[in-house]
Amino acid sequence: MVEVCLPGTGGMLPLENRWTASCWGEFQGTAILIDCGEGTQIALKKAGCKLSRLELLLITHFHADHIAGLPGLLLTLGNYGKKTPLTIAGPAGLGQVVASLMTIAPNLPYPIVLKELDGETRDFDLFGIHFASMHLQHGIPCLGYRLTLKRKPIFNPDKAKELGVPLHYYKTLHAGQPVVLDNGNRILPYMVLDGERRPISICYCTDTQPIEEISSFAHGADLFVCEGMYGDEAMSEKMQEKGHMIFSDSARLAQRAEVKQLWLTHFSPAMKEPEQYLDAAMSIFEHTAVGYDGIRTTLGP
Amino acid sequence: MVEVCLPGTGGMLPLENRWTASCWGEFQGTAILIDCGEGTQIALKKAGCKLSRLELLLITHFHADHIAGLPGLLLTLGNYGKKTPLTIAGPAGLGQVVASLMTIAPNLPYPIVLKELDGETRDFDLFGIHFASMHLQHGIPCLGYRLTLKRKPIFNPDKAKELGVPLHYYKTLHAGQPVVLDNGNRILPYMVLDGERRPISICYCTDTQPIEEISSFAHGADLFVCEGMYGDEAMSEKMQEKGHMIFSDSARLAQRAEVKQLWLTHFSPAMKEPEQYLDAAMSIFEHTAVGYDGIRTTLGP
Repeated sequence: MVEVCLPGTGGMLPLENRWTASCWGEFQGTAILIDCGEGTQIALKKAGCKLSRLELLLITHFHADHIAGLPGLLLTLGNYGKKTPLTIAGPAGLGQVVASLMTIAPNLPYPIVLKELDGETRDFDLFGIHFASMHLQHGIPCLGYRLTLKRKPIFNPDKAKELGVPLHYYKTLHAGQPVVLDNGNRILPYMVLDGERRPISICYCTDTQPIEEISSFAHGADLFVCEGMYGDEAMSEKMQEKGHMIFSDSARLAQRAEVKQLWLTHFSPAMKEPEQYLDAAMSIFEHTAVGYDGIRTTLGP
Repeated sequence: MVEVCLPGTGGMLPLENRWTASCWGEFQGTAILIDCGEGTQIALKKAGCKLSRLELLLITHFHADHIAGLPGLLLTLGNYGKKTPLTIAGPAGLGQVVASLMTIAPNLPYPIVLKELDGETRDFDLFGIHFASMHLQHGIPCLGYRLTLKRKPIFNPDKAKELGVPLHYYKTLHAGQPVVLDNGNRILPYMVLDGERRPISICYCTDTQPIEEISSFAHGADLFVCEGMYGDEAMSEKMQEKGHMIFSDSARLAQRAEVKQLWLTHFSPAMKEPEQYLDAAMSIFEHTAVGYDGIRTTLGP
């Protein structure tokens, strides 16, 4: 199972009551953060996210509201005693941007591993998770991410007991390795497993115009986190020009993508009460939630 | 008269209930900010400081808790419609650090004027204020600042009336320019002025060990804002090693400097209630206040 949380849901700049948009995911004790605007380190603490578990930071693009908190986060991880590497992945140019920002965060006590996602390295596997990325439409290079968490098949302890498998072999068999018992019997994983479990998919798309490719990229996701700068239909044209969406754009993408649920995020500072546009969005895609700082869910059994 | 405010009073990193240390001053409609850590733009808004008035940013040094909020602040000033130049002054190396951070804040709609304070350019005059700087002791180059606001002499409207000076000449005479009345009488400024007013001085010193030069630099200041990482005497040695002070160090400097008042700031995140050490600091220097986010005063009549 995976825990997902949005520590912040704002666009453009941090506000007193709304941090800049980011997404936190935890899977088997490893945490992943998408984007890190100014103040995200505070937002994470407020949302109860354990910074010490952070192993991977995905950056969507290099606008300040998505990366300005990087130096502060890197230093705070060091103060927390981090020694293991932090991987940072993002669009082409990542190395130069991170190096520039590290002017004020030098000499970290842990290594930084950079992954520029370009050309053939657009997708990668890490921590048992498949990370896919797609180019969004936002004026500057900007990536949407899809995380697919492969899960172990279902283990059936009754079958194991029937075969006389001692407890200490369960983990090995569950991981797909055969074992030989003291009596010489060879036990193969399929003999104690109850079939595959569907992977869990989370898709995160911000900032972008509502391009059709997003609905293929997000198709069938358990959770689709998608930007919506405004709920008001009157802002539609202006947002398109600025490389953004309104709630109805996001809801239509979610509907075509047949996702399980949609969380809206990345609200304009000028939109004080995004919740008032929920009904309109739900009339397009029922399983819509208007995100808020700290919104959290658990996916998968 | 000058308004002074500390939007934040924390050291190391921003906390949910304490922003990183900065100082805001307003004099005749022009605002000056000293330091800009992560989240300072939010702290300024919370403290009621009008960002649109900001003309000068002084940076003490290039540790992230003093400058990481720069890209966000620059972009927000642009969003507010700023067109006039923003001057940024700081230690040698400022140009390179600002250029690095502007990787994520390019194409601003107003010019940036950089002043590297080194060698002969350590002091400067701007907006009718004299800015002096001194090298503090902090491991990396770090400047303390002293702002001296020259004030116009006292205007005596009774004298002006007696001499038959019309109202519309008052401003010119107060600014030190002679005028000729319709009847041919020449009025010189000294004829309507009541003598000089003492300049107002504000001194800001953080981060540093308690070096003796600070007491000369701050001498006689109306307000001395000075760092104190801890109130607890047991932290004295450790703070010296790290290039910092404790409250009693700051109070002793204030006492020797014969300043009018001392504001303590830049508290360690580990010190939850700095106020509990106020009495001890006041036993060394009576006119001490423990700063808090939003503390504000007006200096001069």
